[in-house]
Amino acid sequence: MSSTIFILNGPNLNLLGVREPAIYGSETLAAIQTRCEARAAAHGLRIDFRQSNFEGDLIESIHQARLQAVGLIINPAGYSFTSVALVDALKMFDGPKLEVHLSNIHARDAMYHHSLVSKVATAVIAGLGGDGYLHAVDAVARLTSK
Amino acid sequence: MSSTIFILNGPNLNLLGVREPAIYGSETLAAIQTRCEARAAAHGLRIDFRQSNFEGDLIESIHQARLQAVGLIINPAGYSFTSVALVDALKMFDGPKLEVHLSNIHARDAMYHHSLVSKVATAVIAGLGGDGYLHAVDAVARLTSK
Amino acid sequence: MSSTIFILNGPNLNLLGVREPAIYGSETLAAIQTRCEARAAAHGLRIDFRQSNFEGDLIESIHQARLQAVGLIINPAGYSFTSVALVDALKMFDGPKLEVHLSNIHARDAMYHHSLVSKVATAVIAGLGGDGYLHAVDAVARLTSK
Amino acid sequence: MSSTIFILNGPNLNLLGVREPAIYGSETLAAIQTRCEARAAAHGLRIDFRQSNFEGDLIESIHQARLQAVGLIINPAGYSFTSVALVDALKMFDGPKLEVHLSNIHARDAMYHHSLVSKVATAVIAGLGGDGYLHAVDAVARLTSK
Amino acid sequence: MSSTIFILNGPNLNLLGVREPAIYGSETLAAIQTRCEARAAAHGLRIDFRQSNFEGDLIESIHQARLQAVGLIINPAGYSFTSVALVDALKMFDGPKLEVHLSNIHARDAMYHHSLVSKVATAVIAGLGGDGYLHAVDAVARLTSK
Amino acid sequence: MSSTIFILNGPNLNLLGVREPAIYGSETLAAIQTRCEARAAAHGLRIDFRQSNFEGDLIESIHQARLQAVGLIINPAGYSFTSVALVDALKMFDGPKLEVHLSNIHARDAMYHHSLVSKVATAVIAGLGGDGYLHAVDAVARLTSK
Amino acid sequence: MSSTIFILNGPNLNLLGVREPAIYGSETLAAIQTRCEARAAAHGLRIDFRQSNFEGDLIESIHQARLQAVGLIINPAGYSFTSVALVDALKMFDGPKLEVHLSNIHARDAMYHHSLVSKVATAVIAGLGGDGYLHAVDAVARLTSK
Amino acid sequence: MSSTIFILNGPNLNLLGVREPAIYGSETLAAIQTRCEARAAAHGLRIDFRQSNFEGDLIESIHQARLQAVGLIINPAGYSFTSVALVDALKMFDGPKLEVHLSNIHARDAMYHHSLVSKVATAVIAGLGGDGYLHAVDAVARLTSK
Amino acid sequence: MSSTIFILNGPNLNLLGVREPAIYGSETLAAIQTRCEARAAAHGLRIDFRQSNFEGDLIESIHQARLQAVGLIINPAGYSFTSVALVDALKMFDGPKLEVHLSNIHARDAMYHHSLVSKVATAVIAGLGGDGYLHAVDAVARLTSK
Amino acid sequence: MSSTIFILNGPNLNLLGVREPAIYGSETLAAIQTRCEARAAAHGLRIDFRQSNFEGDLIESIHQARLQAVGLIINPAGYSFTSVALVDALKMFDGPKLEVHLSNIHARDAMYHHSLVSKVATAVIAGLGGDGYLHAVDAVARLTSK
Amino acid sequence: MSSTIFILNGPNLNLLGVREPAIYGSETLAAIQTRCEARAAAHGLRIDFRQSNFEGDLIESIHQARLQAVGLIINPAGYSFTSVALVDALKMFDGPKLEVHLSNIHARDAMYHHSLVSKVATAVIAGLGGDGYLHAVDAVARLTSK
Amino acid sequence: MSSTIFILNGPNLNLLGVREPAIYGSETLAAIQTRCEARAAAHGLRIDFRQSNFEGDLIESIHQARLQAVGLIINPAGYSFTSVALVDALKMFDGPKLEVHLSNIHARDAMYHHSLVSKVATAVIAGLGGDGYLHAVDAVARLTSK
Repeated sequence: MSSTIFILNGPNLNLLGVREPAIYGSETLAAIQTRCEARAAAHGLRIDFRQSNFEGDLIESIHQARLQAVGLIINPAGYSFTSVALVDALKMFDGPKLEVHLSNIHARDAMYHHSLVSKVATAVIAGLGGDGYLHAVDAVARLTSK
Repeated sequence: MSSTIFILNGPNLNLLGVREPAIYGSETLAAIQTRCEARAAAHGLRIDFRQSNFEGDLIESIHQARLQAVGLIINPAGYSFTSVALVDALKMFDGPKLEVHLSNIHARDAMYHHSLVSKVATAVIAGLGGDGYLHAVDAVARLTSK
Repeated sequence: MSSTIFILNGPNLNLLGVREPAIYGSETLAAIQTRCEARAAAHGLRIDFRQSNFEGDLIESIHQARLQAVGLIINPAGYSFTSVALVDALKMFDGPKLEVHLSNIHARDAMYHHSLVSKVATAVIAGLGGDGYLHAVDAVARLTSK
Repeated sequence: MSSTIFILNGPNLNLLGVREPAIYGSETLAAIQTRCEARAAAHGLRIDFRQSNFEGDLIESIHQARLQAVGLIINPAGYSFTSVALVDALKMFDGPKLEVHLSNIHARDAMYHHSLVSKVATAVIAGLGGDGYLHAVDAVARLTSK
Repeated sequence: MSSTIFILNGPNLNLLGVREPAIYGSETLAAIQTRCEARAAAHGLRIDFRQSNFEGDLIESIHQARLQAVGLIINPAGYSFTSVALVDALKMFDGPKLEVHLSNIHARDAMYHHSLVSKVATAVIAGLGGDGYLHAVDAVARLTSK
Repeated sequence: MSSTIFILNGPNLNLLGVREPAIYGSETLAAIQTRCEARAAAHGLRIDFRQSNFEGDLIESIHQARLQAVGLIINPAGYSFTSVALVDALKMFDGPKLEVHLSNIHARDAMYHHSLVSKVATAVIAGLGGDGYLHAVDAVARLTSK
Repeated sequence: MSSTIFILNGPNLNLLGVREPAIYGSETLAAIQTRCEARAAAHGLRIDFRQSNFEGDLIESIHQARLQAVGLIINPAGYSFTSVALVDALKMFDGPKLEVHLSNIHARDAMYHHSLVSKVATAVIAGLGGDGYLHAVDAVARLTSK
Repeated sequence: MSSTIFILNGPNLNLLGVREPAIYGSETLAAIQTRCEARAAAHGLRIDFRQSNFEGDLIESIHQARLQAVGLIINPAGYSFTSVALVDALKMFDGPKLEVHLSNIHARDAMYHHSLVSKVATAVIAGLGGDGYLHAVDAVARLTSK
Repeated sequence: MSSTIFILNGPNLNLLGVREPAIYGSETLAAIQTRCEARAAAHGLRIDFRQSNFEGDLIESIHQARLQAVGLIINPAGYSFTSVALVDALKMFDGPKLEVHLSNIHARDAMYHHSLVSKVATAVIAGLGGDGYLHAVDAVARLTSK
Repeated sequence: MSSTIFILNGPNLNLLGVREPAIYGSETLAAIQTRCEARAAAHGLRIDFRQSNFEGDLIESIHQARLQAVGLIINPAGYSFTSVALVDALKMFDGPKLEVHLSNIHARDAMYHHSLVSKVATAVIAGLGGDGYLHAVDAVARLTSK
Repeated sequence: MSSTIFILNGPNLNLLGVREPAIYGSETLAAIQTRCEARAAAHGLRIDFRQSNFEGDLIESIHQARLQAVGLIINPAGYSFTSVALVDALKMFDGPKLEVHLSNIHARDAMYHHSLVSKVATAVIAGLGGDGYLHAVDAVARLTSK
Repeated sequence: MSSTIFILNGPNLNLLGVREPAIYGSETLAAIQTRCEARAAAHGLRIDFRQSNFEGDLIESIHQARLQAVGLIINPAGYSFTSVALVDALKMFDGPKLEVHLSNIHARDAMYHHSLVSKVATAVIAGLGGDGYLHAVDAVARLTSK
């Protein structure tokens, strides 16, 4: 059986560390990836870490996760709030799917309050910055080892 | 004059047959395509059958349909409910444009109740599974032969 | 087992052909009935075709359909948007129930956008004029022969 | 050409004079009818005065008015606020259609504020009690003599 | 003075026992009637028990109740949620008017949450199945004997 | 006692006849004034006819009407939909206050659907063009002679 | 098995008889308790009758009812409309739970129209004053003896 | 400086393990407490673990946390969705405040979608069952050691 | 007759002076109490000054005020916006009831804009800090001496 | 520095004492002015007391207050609920600006619930009749002497 | 034909340069006028530049523009969001009508998001400060020379 | 420092000149590009002119603009109304960002009224057709030369 976790990152996250550091912190996405890989390795798992600014890419990565991953971690960024298509794709993934947001979206502007993705996620972690990804890796490891 | 019908399929429909079969049935998109081609042939028409998970691709296919198609059948899937850009593209296609949904979207979760695309479609067929495409092929054949 | 399809037509449809032809077309309801009967005959089915301007009549016809019909086609017209009682009646009919609208209701005035009936219909066909009824006859024939 | 005005009265108006006199006054519907007939006669017109508690009856009276009346006056009472079917019927009547309410509906409970019928009426008169009908007769006479 | 209670039943209740038994139970309307008559007799009262699928019929029964009944029990079924005309009729009945629902409408689909009729009822009993009618008979007996 | 009716006209009505004649007709405000004066004279009444584009002027005219007028007719035009201050002023006028609109405001754009003034008017007449004023003069004459 | 019914009364009900008697009647809560005990005794049941102005107390009484009661009657008063915590507590009680309101809450101010508690109640009785409790006792007796 | 984390649990959580196990799991609150204490000890921290069904108690515990705790973890349960007072209390706590929900509240009934508390929380973890508390302990440890 | 004014303070006000001083000022609740007592004494009145974080306590204090107080001043803090139970309690107090808010709640976050309590208060004073209480004491003194 | 307080009164307040005395009391605006002047004198301040029915006048008075007044008291009456322009003007006045309403607007019709002006006022006093102005004078005196 | 452009400025703009300079900049209205005149002269056009705090004045200036101006530029300031009367006036002006806002209203408080005037403007320029007027002058010059 | 302005064009704008010319005009996008380049050259600036039907492409162009452009002009077309991801990308661009729409979106269908992008744009120009781009080029030139 697969021992890979897909970690999908949505639009604008490629600029992490540069983008509004007061909100999103100064850690880059590459640094988060490195930390996730180390954490996953400790659980005997591998990470397939991706970022795309295209809704279609994220959907297709979820399709691939169906075949290749035991668990899925997604930070859908701006698409969280607008993409029914992403929700539909996630419904087809049967393993644990963890939604992560760097900032606490509920404490921001109303435009960021209602993640459609949360309706189909297994769990949601918001507001812990890059550490939120590590919590999600731990959670997926635990949920898939049960 | 063109004798081609464009049939455009939106996000996640590539997984038809696998995706939530209780809702969408077990027929694959390829099987639907085959059936559509046979049905169109009976009307002396050709099918250009496409699927994409990218909103931009669907928009550009509609642009091409303007030049190459007598009619257009679209199952916009998740983009039905969120894409103003798709609506704008469809406004530019002058022939009959049939919106098809496999499931009866009105009987599902509220997130699926209001298709923006319906505002600019010629007609809407929802809830007849893969057969809905054949009804749409028949309807386009009839509407373009008048 | 019954081989009859009930086709129920709601308020104002008795004036079809006369009523706002730019929206509803010039075909009369009698002409549609004739076409439906022919189409049903080709499937080895009979049509019981009714029209009433009374919500109560439509409800009672649905009650009768429970005992006499294999399938039900309904164009609830103005009652589509306001009748919970009709919805309740339709819930009791177990066979396929096809909702038909002559015009594409979603492309009209907001008052016509939300059919309550759609929530309990098997499928919805809107915008194909009188031909929509024939599609519905075909669909019922197919669904009841499975 | 016809010289008849249809005056249609909706549900509960048969009890006028008895029904909540503080709101609707103590004049009976029969008394209003007599006054309307006299007023119409002065204009050389005839009145066909009807009341029904059935939405279907009112719809069918409007259908008849299409053939027999030069103008139509309607007090749809409780159906004003809920009947899309009545609105659809009225759209088919080409002559002047005057909506009359005995009370000023806008000054009452919110349930009575939004008459759907007003969207398709030629004019609306509300709050003048039984006299409102006479104003409506005068208005129809004037509008049909132009 | 009258010793009759009118019990009015709205659309689809003629099929009670058959209709969605998981929600409405398996007791027929005739059985409920028999039980109500026995209960009323114990209070020295008579029952006039009616059912209609027509809004107009229900309105006219309420009109008759004004002259013939000491109290009124109504299960307006689907019309509860849509009929301003029924509300207007009930306003004219001065005795106790008990609204009964077999199911607890508040625990169902949103379409069934807001009974317009409740605004003018003396009291509302929902969720006790056919027994709710007996509670209502008892309540009317008590309220009219005070 | 006073025998004067105040007729107050709100913003833009000074341009009547010129302003969007398809909606408001081609009769000028001066012509309406002349017709109102003649009609009032027939009832033994006088007209004080005013127009202002200033909300404050209209309020002060209503204040004067308290002392000088038996009845008040007002076409508040654009202020109908936005002026709480006008509503407050009208509450202080005890005689009949007739709200007149040239067009049927309910059949227009949503911005014109909800007149705040209607909540405090005695009656509302909308959609009869300049003739609406004459109906209002008649109504005031009748209501003040009772 | 337990033969006790818990009857829980929410905030301000300790002042019953004193509090707004035009709405709530002049019977005191103690008098209602006495009547409930007598009625329960006739069914071979005991009553544990409580009142608290504290949301937490009501929640804990529901927790106790889980262990000690066959049925639960609750008049949540002001907490009906605002307490999700009470709803959560009631979800854990498996026996019949009857919601009682002295007044017909639907006929009052909008603030009192939507009881959250009704979503999880077995049945709702509103508008029968203190007698509503006795109806509830009867209903619980019947439902628990089945 | 304090090395204590307050963990506050809202209404109905005392019944954890018993309460709707399909949603909340079968682990008891005591078991969660034990796990939290062990996890905190590993970080050199102490836990002050509390549960109350009273909004006031939770508020006062937050007040105490201001003086005694370096961080605060709260599962406000039913009060999450209704308590402005709890929000006000939390605003006064300057250290990290982690909101934890056992279930993914966003995937449940609409009544549970909008936590007011989330607006003032540092971070939110929902859907990881009792493990969510451990993630929160880790997060507080990390945030207070920076 | 009583010469006591009850002054009730809701949740979190015990921390006044400490709590968000930029919004609520640095004066403590004890200091306000002292000022209120002095001011009341000047009017020959006594103060019963209370604070509670429990909704139930506030309700019971209002119940006591019915028997012991000539007037009531309440700063319901967070409960202003959510407590129907508090509104119900206040309805039973017949003397003047002054609602005081330290900050101008209308100028803050939307969550603080709509005090339910204001619907039943005699008067509302918001934005004057601790001085608002003194204004309220003066107002009660004046209103009860009339 | 200036020692003048501007007191601005909005539409219809010139009729105070005459206007709906059940709501606004019988004191005239002139009487209130006299009382304010006396009260201000006691603080060593002067009053510039104005009333206008014109939104533009009130705006210009606020402009003048910027140059001539230490504080501003405004009862915007009907403009409270509709005037963004007044809000904009008030934003430019830096001293204390007290909003006064004679009645408790929150306890009246919904049309009077949401004062736009409150968003920019320093404080709001509503429901104390003419005395509210004196409280406001005292408050301005206090706030400007700090 | 006229070679004049009317430039109308709404409430509070007379204080430009003084008013909230962080939002509106420090340029005075007179300075903007001078720049507009120079720019217009370069196009061979004249400017009639006006400011009023009165809605009625702005309406009447639009009426005059009908006779005297080839184009109209309006910054309706606070009236943008509330004046239906201004919208009605602008509908009567047939030439190009440019709506200008100094700030980007869409980026401000919700109260400033929806300009009613925009529905009837030819074009809208927002957020370019005083330079927005010059853009508008250029646009009118271009549109009227075509 | 860069002297380039990015001009980004959203979905369907590649068909400009062909697409609904009654709304968007007959000028092609290439023609607009040519005009922009000439205008920019006059300011000593260069244009990087792009069009894409893909949301992801537009986001990545904005990312590139961060490094290569002094200013950004964007016509997001259909994505204006639905793309939070685009808003997030624009927040990261520090220079002036001008939003341009060919048509006056506020005067069209409600679906086009609320541009999310406007919340983060420096300024918005709508309704001036292709000329709007030139105004935007001038504005960027001016804003970046300050």
